[in-house]
Amino acid sequence: MELGLVGLGKMGGNMRERIRRAGHTVVGYAHQRDVSDVHSLKELVDSLAAPRVVWLMVPAGEATQSTVDELAELLDPGDIVVDGGNSRWTDDEKHARELAAKGIGFVDCGVSGGVWGLENGYALMYGGEAEHVARVQPIFDALKPAGEFGAVHAGKVGAGHFAKMVHNGIEYAMMQAFAEGWELLETVDSVTDVREVFRSWQEGTVIRSWLLDLSVRALDDDEHLEQLRGYAADSGEGRWTVEAAIDHAVPLPAITASLFARFGSRQDDSPQMKMIAALRNQFGGHAVESK
Amino acid sequence: MELGLVGLGKMGGNMRERIRRAGHTVVGYAHQRDVSDVHSLKELVDSLAAPRVVWLMVPAGEATQSTVDELAELLDPGDIVVDGGNSRWTDDEKHARELAAKGIGFVDCGVSGGVWGLENGYALMYGGEAEHVARVQPIFDALKPAGEFGAVHAGKVGAGHFAKMVHNGIEYAMMQAFAEGWELLETVDSVTDVREVFRSWQEGTVIRSWLLDLSVRALDDDEHLEQLRGYAADSGEGRWTVEAAIDHAVPLPAITASLFARFGSRQDDSPQMKMIAALRNQFGGHAVESK
Amino acid sequence: MELGLVGLGKMGGNMRERIRRAGHTVVGYAHQRDVSDVHSLKELVDSLAAPRVVWLMVPAGEATQSTVDELAELLDPGDIVVDGGNSRWTDDEKHARELAAKGIGFVDCGVSGGVWGLENGYALMYGGEAEHVARVQPIFDALKPAGEFGAVHAGKVGAGHFAKMVHNGIEYAMMQAFAEGWELLETVDSVTDVREVFRSWQEGTVIRSWLLDLSVRALDDDEHLEQLRGYAADSGEGRWTVEAAIDHAVPLPAITASLFARFGSRQDDSPQMKMIAALRNQFGGHAVESK
Amino acid sequence: MELGLVGLGKMGGNMRERIRRAGHTVVGYAHQRDVSDVHSLKELVDSLAAPRVVWLMVPAGEATQSTVDELAELLDPGDIVVDGGNSRWTDDEKHARELAAKGIGFVDCGVSGGVWGLENGYALMYGGEAEHVARVQPIFDALKPAGEFGAVHAGKVGAGHFAKMVHNGIEYAMMQAFAEGWELLETVDSVTDVREVFRSWQEGTVIRSWLLDLSVRALDDDEHLEQLRGYAADSGEGRWTVEAAIDHAVPLPAITASLFARFGSRQDDSPQMKMIAALRNQFGGHAVESK
Repeated sequence: MELGLVGLGKMGGNMRERIRRAGHTVVGYAHQRDVSDVHSLKELVDSLAAPRVVWLMVPAGEATQSTVDELAELLDPGDIVVDGGNSRWTDDEKHARELAAKGIGFVDCGVSGGVWGLENGYALMYGGEAEHVARVQPIFDALKPAGEFGAVHAGKVGAGHFAKMVHNGIEYAMMQAFAEGWELLETVDSVTDVREVFRSWQEGTVIRSWLLDLSVRALDDDEHLEQLRGYAADSGEGRWTVEAAIDHAVPLPAITASLFARFGSRQDDSPQMKMIAALRNQFGGHAVESK
Repeated sequence: MELGLVGLGKMGGNMRERIRRAGHTVVGYAHQRDVSDVHSLKELVDSLAAPRVVWLMVPAGEATQSTVDELAELLDPGDIVVDGGNSRWTDDEKHARELAAKGIGFVDCGVSGGVWGLENGYALMYGGEAEHVARVQPIFDALKPAGEFGAVHAGKVGAGHFAKMVHNGIEYAMMQAFAEGWELLETVDSVTDVREVFRSWQEGTVIRSWLLDLSVRALDDDEHLEQLRGYAADSGEGRWTVEAAIDHAVPLPAITASLFARFGSRQDDSPQMKMIAALRNQFGGHAVESK
Repeated sequence: MELGLVGLGKMGGNMRERIRRAGHTVVGYAHQRDVSDVHSLKELVDSLAAPRVVWLMVPAGEATQSTVDELAELLDPGDIVVDGGNSRWTDDEKHARELAAKGIGFVDCGVSGGVWGLENGYALMYGGEAEHVARVQPIFDALKPAGEFGAVHAGKVGAGHFAKMVHNGIEYAMMQAFAEGWELLETVDSVTDVREVFRSWQEGTVIRSWLLDLSVRALDDDEHLEQLRGYAADSGEGRWTVEAAIDHAVPLPAITASLFARFGSRQDDSPQMKMIAALRNQFGGHAVESK
Repeated sequence: MELGLVGLGKMGGNMRERIRRAGHTVVGYAHQRDVSDVHSLKELVDSLAAPRVVWLMVPAGEATQSTVDELAELLDPGDIVVDGGNSRWTDDEKHARELAAKGIGFVDCGVSGGVWGLENGYALMYGGEAEHVARVQPIFDALKPAGEFGAVHAGKVGAGHFAKMVHNGIEYAMMQAFAEGWELLETVDSVTDVREVFRSWQEGTVIRSWLLDLSVRALDDDEHLEQLRGYAADSGEGRWTVEAAIDHAVPLPAITASLFARFGSRQDDSPQMKMIAALRNQFGGHAVESK
C-alpha cells in the first residue's frame, strides 16, 4: 500500500526503510531536504491516492500539533492520520476530535525499537477504532518483528500511547534495577569479576532479559564504564507515567524512584543536600563542606 | 564423579535428578527417610570415596551451620563442602575458616532456577579458591543450563552467595516494575485488553524478559488475577541486599521500594497509616475511618 | 474595612468569625441559607462599597472557576478578588488574566490553620501585585497569628498557592516520618511505652514540632490507635507538589513516598502485589494466598 | 551526687559543665590530658565513692566496648555504668550481660541536644531496670531541659538507644522534607523570596518545628546556601533505623529515601547512573556524556 510518512529522523528514516523492504510505497517528508522525498506536506498529500494514510513521526507537543493542524486542512474525509511519535496520551483524544470534525480518522501508535528496529522490527501498541486500525494494518505488519508478538491493538484512541508510556515506565525501573545491582557488586571486594557475573546471568536466571544482554554489551565495551559520566536524560514518558499514576492514585514507588534518580544525576550539586548540610551544621555543629 | 548431597527438598531433589541424568553418582541425604539414600550424614560420608565433595542444600542459618559443624568432624582433609543453599554471604567466610582449620575446602554457590531448573538447568554463581572450584566443576557443568552462559566463578569465598543475593535484589525491582505497570494499565478505561498488551511486549520491546513471559502465563491463568490476594512474602536475599547496600553506602531506591511494597502487602491494617489518619484528624478535623 | 467572603464551610465560617473579631465588616455568602448573610453573589457585591475586596473560600476547580467567572461580570474595575481556597497554582494566572481584562485585581492566598485557626490564627502565603496585596493587608493582619510570623507576600500571582502547596508537601513527609517512627517503636518489645517516648520528645530534641505535639494528643486519646483504620485521604496539594517537582526535574523522594503510602492505604487489596504473588508462583512454585 | 564521666568531646565536655552547674560532682576522664580531671580510668574509679555511677560518652563500637570491658574489671558490685554514647541498641544487651556477671548495673541512654544542649538541656531516652535508672535519676534531671518533657524511661535495656535511633530516623526524614520543599520553591520563578516564605511558616502552620527555625537561621546566614556543597554525612543511627525496620518487616519509605539521598550526595559520579546512561546508549543510540 501507499503511506505518507512525516518525519525522517533516527526513527522515521529507519521505519521508511523497513516499510519499503516489505514492498510498500512510502512518500517521506521532512524539513531536511536531503532526506525528504517531497518538498512540502501539501506535495506529500497530493502524491498519495485517496483514501490516504499519513503517519507522523515528529517530536511530541508543538511539532505534532502543528502537523495535525496542517493535515486537517490538507487531507480529505476518509483519510487517516497515524501519530507514531511519543505524544502524551492526553493529546490523542484532542487530535482525534479535531480530525474527526473533518471526517479524517486517527490512530495513535506507540513505537519501541530504537536503533535495533530496522533489522529486528518495531514493537507497536496502537489505539483507535477498529476500522481505522484495519486500514493501517499492512504497515503495522511491515514494521513489527517477525514473530507472533510485538504488535497490539491496545484499545481506544490514546491507548497506544498510554501502553507505550507504561512500557517506558517499566523500562525505567528495570534499568534502575540492573544499575543498582551493578553498583553494589562493584563495591565489594569479594566479587572479582562483575562483568562475568552479568554475562552468566543470561541463562537460567529469573532476571534474564534483553536489558541484561545490553548491559553485558555495554560492559564489554567498557568494563567499569569509566568512559561515561553518571548522567541520564529522561524523555517525557517516564514523567507522564508518574503523573498518570498520581491521577489514578496508583502507588508507583520503583518507577518513580528511577525517574528521580535520573533527575538527581543531572545536578552538579544538589540544592536539597545543601539544606541537609546546613541543618546538620545548625543543630550539631557538624562540619560542612564549603565550596 | 561422586557427589554427596545433603537436603532433598524442592530444590535439592530436582538437582539430584539433574546431576544423575548427567551420569554422575549422587548419594543424597535428608531427614525424610522416603527420599533419602542413606540414613545419616555419617553414612553419606562413609559411602563416598575420598577426596569427597559434599553439597549442602539445606535452609540458611542454623540448619546450614549445624551441618557444616557436623561435616567438619566427619570429613577428611582434602574433602570439599559446597554450600548451595541461600546462606547469607557473611556466613560463608566463617564456614570456610571453620572447615579450613580441618583441611577441608569450601565453595559457596548461589543457585537460581526454581521449579524450572530440572529441565532448563540452574544458574550458578560460585565463590572460592580456584582449586576447590575446579574439583566441583563437573557438577556445576551438570547443573547449569545447556548454553554458553549460566555459571560463573564470581570471586572469593562469599562471592557466589553475594552475586546470587544481588540477582534476587534485581529480581525484586524487575517484578515490582511489571507489577506497577500492570496495575496502572488496569486502572485506565482506554486500554481495553491489558493482557494482550503484555503479550505483545514479548517481542521488539526494551522490556522483553523471562519475567514478562511469566507474567503473560500468569494472566493466561487468571486474566485479572482475581483469584489471588495481593500478599507477597520475601526471602532473606532481598533484605540482605538492602543491608549490604547500607553497609557500602550505595543508594538502592528501586530495590528497597520493592522490598517495602512486600512488607506493606502483608499488613492487614497499616499502623503507620493509622498515625497519618490520627494526625489529619488532629489538625484538620478530617474525617477518619473508624473500625 | 469591608470584606465579601464567598464560601462559609469549616474554614470560611471560622475565618469570617476571626475577621469580625478584629473589627472588620464581613458579608458572607454561601449556598447554605442558614449561614449566609446574603442570598446571592449579586447581593453580596451590591452590599459592598466600591472599591471592593471579595475573598473566595470555595472548593478548588470548577466551583472556584465559576465563582471567578460570575464575579468578573458583577464586579467593577478597581475591585479585587482573593482566592483563599486550595486552588492549583496553575489556575491563578488564568484567573488573574480573566479578571485583569475587566480591570479587576487578583491575589491568591494559601491558608493553613485547620480547626485551630479561629483561635490561633491562620498562616497565610499570598501572591500578586504589591498594590493589590496592600489593599487586602488589613484582612491578612486580622487572620494571621498574633506573633511576628505567619504571613508572607511570597511573590507574583500563583506564588501564594505554590508556597502553600509546598508547605503541604513538606507536611506529608513530616507526618510520614512520625508515622514510620511510631510503627517501628511499636514493633519492638524492649520499648515498653511508646507514647511516653513521643511525649518526652517534645523538649530538647531535634524533632520537636507541632506535629509531634499533635501525635501525643492523638496517642493520649487512643494509645495504640486501635480505634482507627490505617486509611489516609490525600488532598490535591500533595499530588500537585509531585507534579510540580516533575515539571522542574526536582527529585522529591520523601514527599512522593509519603503520597504513595496514602494511595496504598486506600486499597483493600493491592493489584500490583497480586502480580508479585503471581510471578513468585510462576517461577518458584511459591505458595500464594488465594481468596 | 558524684558521677564519673568518660569521654569529654563536644558532647561530653558540655554535659560535664551542665551537670556541675546543677551542683553535682563530676570526675571526667578523657585521653586528652588538657581536659581530663584524672589520668586513667582506674584513677577515675578510685576517686569515686561506692556505689558508683560511671557515664560513658565515647564513640560507639570498639571504643565503647573496650571501656565497658575495662570497667567490668575496675568497678565493684552495686556500681552502675550508663552508656550515653551512640551505641547500636544491639550492643546494649551484650554490655548489660557482661556487667551483670560482675554484679554491675547497666543503663543505656540516648542523648539528643547537639551544640544547644549545654544551655537548653539534653533530651534523654534511657533503658534499663527501674532500680538502676533510679540511681542515675539526679543526673538525668540535671541534664534534661527545664520543662516537663525531655526525658523518658523508654523500657528495658536497649530501649533508650532504640528510641534515640528512631528519633534520628524521624529527624532524617523531617530534614529531607524541608530540603525537598526548599529546592522546589527555589526552582520556580513566581516565588520571589523563598527565605521569607520559610520565615513566615514559623507560626500558624502545620510544619512549624525546631528544624524549620534552624532552616531559617541557615538561610539568614546564606540566603541561597551558595557557600555549601550538597554533601551530607550520615551517622550510624539512620542506617540502623532502616536495618531495624527490615528486621521487623516495617516499611520505612520516607526515612530510607532520606538516607539514600545522603549516600548519593557523597558520590562524585554515580556508578549506577553510568549504567543507566550505558543502557540508554545501547538500545536507543542516545547520546551519552563522556568524560
